[in-house]
Amino acid sequence: MYTLYYAPGAASLVVHWLLIELGAEHELKKVDLQAGEQRSAEYLKLNPNGVVPTLIVDGDPVAECAALVLLMAERHADAGLAPAPGSAARATYLQWTLHLANTLQPAFRTWFYPAEAAGEVHADLAKAAAQRRIEQVFVGVDAHLRQHGPHFCGEQLTALDFYATMLMRWSRNMPKPATEWPALAALAARMKARPSFKLLYESEGLTEWA
Amino acid sequence: MYTLYYAPGAASLVVHWLLIELGAEHELKKVDLQAGEQRSAEYLKLNPNGVVPTLIVDGDPVAECAALVLLMAERHADAGLAPAPGSAARATYLQWTLHLANTLQPAFRTWFYPAEAAGEVHADLAKAAAQRRIEQVFVGVDAHLRQHGPHFCGEQLTALDFYATMLMRWSRNMPKPATEWPALAALAARMKARPSFKLLYESEGLTEWA
Repeated sequence: MYTLYYAPGAASLVVHWLLIELGAEHELKKVDLQAGEQRSAEYLKLNPNGVVPTLIVDGDPVAECAALVLLMAERHADAGLAPAPGSAARATYLQWTLHLANTLQPAFRTWFYPAEAAGEVHADLAKAAAQRRIEQVFVGVDAHLRQHGPHFCGEQLTALDFYATMLMRWSRNMPKPATEWPALAALAARMKARPSFKLLYESEGLTEWA
Repeated sequence: MYTLYYAPGAASLVVHWLLIELGAEHELKKVDLQAGEQRSAEYLKLNPNGVVPTLIVDGDPVAECAALVLLMAERHADAGLAPAPGSAARATYLQWTLHLANTLQPAFRTWFYPAEAAGEVHADLAKAAAQRRIEQVFVGVDAHLRQHGPHFCGEQLTALDFYATMLMRWSRNMPKPATEWPALAALAARMKARPSFKLLYESEGLTEWA
């Protein structure tokens, strides 16, 4: 039994999606980001950085979206959403998960909250730099998928594909969304066709990029 | 047998350190960052982002420092440098590895190369923002270690402690280095006392923060 603190469409989406995909019993607690609930004393006790997701695992709060992607895949190893340790695909899986986590996801944070990175005065500049970084990562992912696809680890679907799809979704209203790159568009279409995606959208009340 | 492309003191340091600590047979190839070797056509084939480290694992290049930390620990599981999947410490291990990878390490990149993030004109501003983020992470790590230390996963030494030590080292010439926080200073002292640290310094020709 898991409890997920989430906000619709936010970085909690991939954790929610994996819970559904894995058929893992879970309870949802919505955090109202507009109302600032993520900065309430109660929530900061669970997540000192004041962000979603937080997942309660065996009674303890766990944060960091990409860490939860890795953790969920290995806790539900039977589902085969992570290459086995020691396999050739394992390095690919870890390398790309970390690359998206430390390059693409922070760039999106800057894209959505540019003043955080550079102050109000320089927000436009920060946003432009974030856009360049995001597009640069998409170029790299597209090249990887064209050579090694259709998933990040070839034929094997992994938790990383769910994570990447959430990040691609965030680009939907950008000047050049992820789906402008053919191999990314193909991966997105494949992932969006999963029954778990529909259930996720219904549960979070999402409509855009359906 | 591994081959590590590295530069002294750079993000390859933790991988080199773990290779020594684990007693893993390896060959070193120095990349001259000053001379721009990381942007040579030959190196970009191994590492399209033009950064160190690249580790050749079973004949294939693997990038991303934190991914290599996780990978090395699980490939040499006998050394016990990673909590076992399913253990309570596993979530802590993944959460903090990802947190350092996606928050602290990118902030250091901005601190050392501020013009990259914001252009030459705004470099000072970017640097100041990076310093705030770095100190904020150190505050969080110090609080975690005071409560759950002496290592990130309590009594168990893990690959994450090596990674954190490399990142702490990078702050040595900052206005407020990591060692200003007592629990961080204690972890750094403990890690620097390992025989593998001395061998690492000799091999990379390092002297600062010895």
